[in-house]
Amino acid sequence: MPFTIDPQLAADTVPLGDFTLSHVRLMNERHYPWLVLVPMRTGIRELIELTPFEQAALTTEIDRASRALTALFRPDKLNIGAIGNIVSQLHVHIVARFRTDPAWPKPVWGAAPREAYDADALAERTATLRVALRLGP
Amino acid sequence: MPFTIDPQLAADTVPLGDFTLSHVRLMNERHYPWLVLVPMRTGIRELIELTPFEQAALTTEIDRASRALTALFRPDKLNIGAIGNIVSQLHVHIVARFRTDPAWPKPVWGAAPREAYDADALAERTATLRVALRLGP
Repeated sequence: MPFTIDPQLAADTVPLGDFTLSHVRLMNERHYPWLVLVPMRTGIRELIELTPFEQAALTTEIDRASRALTALFRPDKLNIGAIGNIVSQLHVHIVARFRTDPAWPKPVWGAAPREAYDADALAERTATLRVALRLGP
Repeated sequence: MPFTIDPQLAADTVPLGDFTLSHVRLMNERHYPWLVLVPMRTGIRELIELTPFEQAALTTEIDRASRALTALFRPDKLNIGAIGNIVSQLHVHIVARFRTDPAWPKPVWGAAPREAYDADALAERTATLRVALRLGP
């Protein structure tokens, strides 16, 4: 079966490109620099369903995404989570958090209502992130 | 500096034992089987502050803890998170979630008020988990 993104996850995010294991997306939520990694494997819901090799690859890609967010945004804290209670397809959130952001110190999941980027801000943010993540132009 | 547990984290949890990298604790919250892994390194706040080798070890230990929760409780979903907005010492939550639990489908962090185990239930749960996690008697 070809790899496809869960429709709700696709609707909430925009594509940035692919790492080796994970498809990389930006949550369309202007309050938080927020990446989502989706391992390109079909039918996987949990980290423990990945092979040890895939788990190691995902760890490396979480590190890479985390370093890019840190370099670009200098957050007060990174929040990393694999939850999936609503969208069960395995996906990992990596969110740059600030003491001044609207949900702080609560997690962003299920927090305040989301607000999309406007078109210019979204274009700029995706371009900047693609460079920082070395996902090409 | 010797490794110590953040006082608030210590107050919310009970010790189960040690893996190679991580000290393992149980959240004293009777609604959710909820483990917390605390890498035994001083002054670490973020995953990216661990070495690649330590990150790999932590990934293995998250897998081990996740498999133990799955074998014991057959959850509908595992929730895994490294948040740390309140307790900044690096710690990873691994929570067995059920469609019938009080916070579902929301995350457990910052959800409904917590309720501690009673003494007998806590003793039984810690004993069961120590066996399943192979942390010894």
